[in-house]
Amino acid sequence: MNQRVYNFSAGPSALPESVLMEASKDMLNYKGSGMSVMEMSHRSKVFEEIIQEAESLFRDLLGIHDRYKVLFLQGGASTQFSMIPMNLMTKTGKADYVDTGSWASKAIKEAKRYGNVNVLASSKDKTYSYIPELDPASFTKDADYFHITVNNTIYGTRFAPDLLPDTNGVPLVGDMSSNILSEVYDINKFGLIYAGAQKNMGPSGLTMVAIREDLVGQAMDLTPTMLNYKIHVDADSLYNTPPCYSIYIAMLIFRWLKNQGGVEAMEKTNKEKAALLYNYLDESSLFKATVEEKDRSLMNIPFVTGNDELDGAFVKESTAKGLVNLKGHRSVGGMRASIYNAMTMEGVETLVAFMKEFEAKNK
Amino acid sequence: MNQRVYNFSAGPSALPESVLMEASKDMLNYKGSGMSVMEMSHRSKVFEEIIQEAESLFRDLLGIHDRYKVLFLQGGASTQFSMIPMNLMTKTGKADYVDTGSWASKAIKEAKRYGNVNVLASSKDKTYSYIPELDPASFTKDADYFHITVNNTIYGTRFAPDLLPDTNGVPLVGDMSSNILSEVYDINKFGLIYAGAQKNMGPSGLTMVAIREDLVGQAMDLTPTMLNYKIHVDADSLYNTPPCYSIYIAMLIFRWLKNQGGVEAMEKTNKEKAALLYNYLDESSLFKATVEEKDRSLMNIPFVTGNDELDGAFVKESTAKGLVNLKGHRSVGGMRASIYNAMTMEGVETLVAFMKEFEAKNK
Repeated sequence: MNQRVYNFSAGPSALPESVLMEASKDMLNYKGSGMSVMEMSHRSKVFEEIIQEAESLFRDLLGIHDRYKVLFLQGGASTQFSMIPMNLMTKTGKADYVDTGSWASKAIKEAKRYGNVNVLASSKDKTYSYIPELDPASFTKDADYFHITVNNTIYGTRFAPDLLPDTNGVPLVGDMSSNILSEVYDINKFGLIYAGAQKNMGPSGLTMVAIREDLVGQAMDLTPTMLNYKIHVDADSLYNTPPCYSIYIAMLIFRWLKNQGGVEAMEKTNKEKAALLYNYLDESSLFKATVEEKDRSLMNIPFVTGNDELDGAFVKESTAKGLVNLKGHRSVGGMRASIYNAMTMEGVETLVAFMKEFEAKNK
Repeated sequence: MNQRVYNFSAGPSALPESVLMEASKDMLNYKGSGMSVMEMSHRSKVFEEIIQEAESLFRDLLGIHDRYKVLFLQGGASTQFSMIPMNLMTKTGKADYVDTGSWASKAIKEAKRYGNVNVLASSKDKTYSYIPELDPASFTKDADYFHITVNNTIYGTRFAPDLLPDTNGVPLVGDMSSNILSEVYDINKFGLIYAGAQKNMGPSGLTMVAIREDLVGQAMDLTPTMLNYKIHVDADSLYNTPPCYSIYIAMLIFRWLKNQGGVEAMEKTNKEKAALLYNYLDESSLFKATVEEKDRSLMNIPFVTGNDELDGAFVKESTAKGLVNLKGHRSVGGMRASIYNAMTMEGVETLVAFMKEFEAKNK
């Protein structure tokens, strides 16, 4: 086998090597069942144990209260952009949104098709390089919900756990696709959280949702059955065949995360990893971070040299060294290092060492 | 490693062993990329090659004309039950459906929420044990489409390739979830076909759609973005992150299928496998098939003894012998052997030998 690379992809992204090794080993015969997890009936006892353990670990890791339902769905965050208004925007038909990037914008655009959306603030003026200040006086008092994108994958900003808006009883809805399980958030402050699995939880094709019970069961009449939370709540995510193999990998990752010490321990490591990179960026005379300090993501770290040619050379040379997927998103340019839970400290150290070397050569 | 079992599950179901072996081998490092297919950006060159090869093989195996778009979607056939009316029932708002089982009924129920559904015929009177005769005079001349469930997983019936209804220009829509790629159908007779992957194409979480170009782009205004075919057509199934690993396994299965000689060769083997079981059922004095001869599925074969206690004993004893998932669906009772493409002739021979033994002991 060739060497594995350091994969800084924004998603799908690096997974823990031990998880992949276990999945590989059990591919033809999972725990003496005589079959692969891919071949199992979703109604079988052996798969039931997998989905139940996955749910239990997910609840445990995030500290999710019993009054929430946990759902294993398909369709990615993009499907949630429709499900949320179709299921929740049904009392006053109003919702507040904060525009912190492309994904937030897409969520807003979709919600506008189903009700009255109030965009409270936007950081589009500076390429979404900060989280805008919110004025509580502008919040819609009788909104059905208040939506934020907790971490912005493309721009590298986040609502820090202590800077979540106080919505005064309006259910807070959070897209945590790119930072779920990476640092401690009080999930019970939210009415609903959702996250595509393909950053911190496993392969693409699985979307995790935790929804407070009182928000279930009020969908618009026009809601497609498969986009109605109540259908999935009533069937324990087995209304139809769920993405079984992705759920299995998620279970293995949740186990791995628990063995690492849970989200608290992960947060500590993630802060160390991020600090290593940000500290270097702040002192470098070649590279600079693009995001305001207080709003910096621990997961997605964009940086630039300010010179397109140098950026291009950096991406090319880093790739040759086995540091891959560092090219920035076209809307920000430059580079972006996505350092999710599965990225090791060693990977970040190797990146910073290479950046220093590159800087020395190009100053 | 313990022995692998003969897995007669209706879905998710048995996959070719060689495919699982290859997936296992490449789990940590796909073709020198230094990463698992689960860890790859869906926008990367290496994944692009996977999805393109998968599409090309799928088109090739099914003989799909260039005027069709092939889509890799999420959400299962159940999501198609909504997508089809939301996208297609938009000219006259009328559609014809044939009720041949639970899944057909669910499709009908969902379509009724979005337009005028004419249920032309039903075989519910005899537990869906046959395909009802259709009277062309009853067809809605200006229907937007005509929907059939080509193979009925639970009841074991199918519209044989030469018995597809002649819809006189109305687009025929077919749910081929449980018999796609198992025998030769002229796909170009359909306006749209769809199939969940978890029977003949791979892991659950992937849904294949082939749609004739002229049917794309007329969705109802209320259609969620992710349920609009045009969105996925315009983005070549990469509007958002697709279920990448499932697409990779599907590609490996399509390759395997091509190496077996394609759908023609598969049909030959499937007919031999089915004949072995049906012939035995027709001559047995203990077991009997539940479906009328002309409508028998090659994929799903329900059978009963007529004695619940004996049925129970059979399921228990067969399981102990490594012949698993033979319990019938609760709505038919008895047993069901799902013998998809990946079930070997040896597997069916082993089953029939065991049935003979069981019959000898219990006559």
